[in-house]
Amino acid sequence: MNELSPVLKRAKSIFDLPTPILILDQPKLEENARRMRERTRQLGVTLRPHVKTSKSIDVFKVLSGGADFPITVSTLAEAHYFFARGARDILYAVGIAPVKLPQVGDLVRAGCRMRVILDSLDAAEAVNGFGSSEGLTIEALIEVDTDGHRAGIAPDDELLIEVARRLTSGSGGGLAGVMTHAGGSYSARALGEFEDIAERERTGAVVAADRLRSAGFPIEVVSVGSTPTVHYARTLDGVTEVRVGVYAFGDLVQAELGTCAISDIAISVLASVIGHSVSHGRVLTDAGFLALSRDRGTADFPIDWGYGAVCDGPSGELIENVRVDSTNQEHGIITARTGELDWSRFPIGGRVRILPNHACATAAAFDRYFVTDGDERITDVWGRVNGW
Amino acid sequence: MNELSPVLKRAKSIFDLPTPILILDQPKLEENARRMRERTRQLGVTLRPHVKTSKSIDVFKVLSGGADFPITVSTLAEAHYFFARGARDILYAVGIAPVKLPQVGDLVRAGCRMRVILDSLDAAEAVNGFGSSEGLTIEALIEVDTDGHRAGIAPDDELLIEVARRLTSGSGGGLAGVMTHAGGSYSARALGEFEDIAERERTGAVVAADRLRSAGFPIEVVSVGSTPTVHYARTLDGVTEVRVGVYAFGDLVQAELGTCAISDIAISVLASVIGHSVSHGRVLTDAGFLALSRDRGTADFPIDWGYGAVCDGPSGELIENVRVDSTNQEHGIITARTGELDWSRFPIGGRVRILPNHACATAAAFDRYFVTDGDERITDVWGRVNGW
Repeated sequence: MNELSPVLKRAKSIFDLPTPILILDQPKLEENARRMRERTRQLGVTLRPHVKTSKSIDVFKVLSGGADFPITVSTLAEAHYFFARGARDILYAVGIAPVKLPQVGDLVRAGCRMRVILDSLDAAEAVNGFGSSEGLTIEALIEVDTDGHRAGIAPDDELLIEVARRLTSGSGGGLAGVMTHAGGSYSARALGEFEDIAERERTGAVVAADRLRSAGFPIEVVSVGSTPTVHYARTLDGVTEVRVGVYAFGDLVQAELGTCAISDIAISVLASVIGHSVSHGRVLTDAGFLALSRDRGTADFPIDWGYGAVCDGPSGELIENVRVDSTNQEHGIITARTGELDWSRFPIGGRVRILPNHACATAAAFDRYFVTDGDERITDVWGRVNGW
Repeated sequence: MNELSPVLKRAKSIFDLPTPILILDQPKLEENARRMRERTRQLGVTLRPHVKTSKSIDVFKVLSGGADFPITVSTLAEAHYFFARGARDILYAVGIAPVKLPQVGDLVRAGCRMRVILDSLDAAEAVNGFGSSEGLTIEALIEVDTDGHRAGIAPDDELLIEVARRLTSGSGGGLAGVMTHAGGSYSARALGEFEDIAERERTGAVVAADRLRSAGFPIEVVSVGSTPTVHYARTLDGVTEVRVGVYAFGDLVQAELGTCAISDIAISVLASVIGHSVSHGRVLTDAGFLALSRDRGTADFPIDWGYGAVCDGPSGELIENVRVDSTNQEHGIITARTGELDWSRFPIGGRVRILPNHACATAAAFDRYFVTDGDERITDVWGRVNGW
C-alpha cells in the first residue's frame, strides 16, 4: 500500500476524500463471513477461503473469525503476503507453471504447507523433478474437470492415475489430493440447475479421489468450490474442504445468482458527479473502467446492471432505475435503464456509490479499502496485495 | 513500485521471471515516439502527451525525446508523480470534481502550471470559489463537445460564454482556453470517416475559441486530440496543441484503426502455458483478466482478437490463427479463431506473449515494465503510478 497522503490522513468522512475510492462496509462483511462459517459448519467441511477476492489480511481476519483457517490463493504474491502475516496452510489454485517453482520452494523451505495444483504429465514431471533437485517434496492436488469449463482431468480418465504416478515416482512430488472448481455454476439460472452442478462438482471430485485411493494413493484432500455451488449444494459427502471467495463481499452477479441480496454487497466505489448531458440523459462520474473494471458480468441476467448499479452517496440507498451504462478510462456514464433520470440525485460534485458486477475485478483496481461501520465515518484503512 | 524480490533481481532474461509480467520493447516505443513528434511538428502544433497510457516518467522521457514537454494526466496521482519528477505544465483532462480542488491547489501553490477542465456553471463556480478562498487563481479549459460522445458544451451553445463568465467573475478562476476529445473517432472505420471526425474536432474547438474571443476572453489554448484524429487530421489550423496517449505503445484497436501496425505494438504480457484441453481445443495460460483486462475493444472489428492476440514466446512472432478467447481472474484460454491449433507452439511451461486490445487497460494491471531491446534480455525495469 502506498504511503497515505496528508489529504487522506486528515479525512474523517468518506466524503472528504478525492474520488474514486473503494469503500468497505465492515458490518456487511462480518455478516457475510458469519453466514459462510455457519454454512460450512452445517455441511461438515473445512472452509478454505479464496483470498483472491479481498487480497487483504484484515479482511481475512474477519472471514476466519479469529480462528486458524487455511487459505486459497490465486497468485504467489498473495502466498508470500499471507505467509508473512501468519498463514501456514496455503493452496495455490492456478495450475503451476514450472517457472514459478523456485518461489514455491522458498515457501515450503520456510515452513509453509504450500500446495500447488496440476493436471498434466508434464507439470507432474516438472514438480517432481524440481523437488528432487532441491531436496524438497512439493505437494500437489490433481485438478479434476467436473463441468468442461476450464481445466482438469475427467474423473474417469486413465490420465488421472498416470499423473499421480508421474508426480510420486520419486521423492520430489507428493500427492495430497484432488480439487475441482465448477465455474460452470455461473451459467446456471434456476435452483435445480445450481443443485445439479453442485452435485456434479461433488461427485466428480469424490469419484476421482476414490479411483486414486483404489490405485493405492492415500488421498487426504477432496477440495471443491465456488460461491454458488457451496451455497446451493444439498450435501458435500466425501468432500473435505471448500474454496469460496466472492461471498466475502458479494456483488451484483452473486445477487442475480441468489447467493446474496444486493443489500449484502459490502464494497462500493465512491465516485463524484463531474458532468451532466441533459440532452443525452447522461450523468458523468469520475469512476471509469480502471475503477469499476470492464466486467460485464450481469450482461446476460434478467437485470443488466451495465458496469455497475448506482446508490445515492449520502444514504447508500440503491437508485433502482439507473446504471453505469458505459465507461472510458476515468469516466463512467450513468443513464436510466428504465423511466427517467431524477437529476436531483446527481448534483455536480455530489457523490454516488457504485456496486460492482464482480467484486474480485473491481477491488483489484484499488490498493486499499476505506473501512466504515456502515455510515460515512472512516474507521480504518486496510491494504491489499495486488499484482504477481 | 513494490520492492523487487530476489527472484526478479537475479533475472537476466524475461524467461527467468515468474509470469505474468509486462514487457516493453524499447526500440518500438522509441519509433512510435519519433513518429508522433514528427507528425505534430509537420502539423505545427504542440505535442502534449497523455501519460494515462504509460503512467511512467521513464516512458515519458522517451516520448519527449529529452525536450521539455507539457503533459496531460487522467488522475491527480499522475499529476503529483510527474510534478515530483520535473513536469511543470500539466493538464488534468477529466472534469474537475470539487472534492479534488485542495490537491489541485497544492500543485498550483508549489509552482505547477496546473490546469483543470470543466463544462458546467456549477463546476466553474466551485473552481472560482475555491481559488478565491485560497488566494489562488485556478486556471481551467472549458470542455467542448464536438461529437456527442461524452462531455462538453456544444461550440455554438450560449452556455459556453456563461461558463466563461462564471469562471472569471472573481480572481479565483482563470480561463486558459478550450479543449475537446473526439472519442467518437473509435467508432469510425473508413479513411473518410476518420478525416471527417478529425475535422469536426478541429472546427468545434476553433469555433468555440473564436466565440469566446469575440466575447472578450483571451484564449491561449485550443487543445484537441485522440490518437486516431491526430493520425488522420488533414489540417490542425487554429489548434495550438494535441493530446495523444495510446500511440506510445499502440495496441490491437489502433492496428485495426490503421494508426499503427501490429508489429509496432510495444507492450505485451508474457504468460506461461499451464494446461491443455485437447478435446476442447484449448490452451490454458496464467494471464487472466487481471493481467489482460476485460477490454474487448476489437469485438466489433473485422478481426476480433478476443482478449488479445498471441505471439510465440521466444521469437515474438504473431501466431495469426489463435486468440485469447476467454478469461477468468488468473486464467486465459487460447483457442484457434481459424483453422487448427498447432500444439507444438504451446508446450506446458512454454511462454507466449499476448498483445493487448487496449494498451491503457492492460498496462494498468502492472506496476512495472520489464524493458527489453527487442529480444529476451532485460535492460531495465521502469515503474508506473497506478491508482488515484
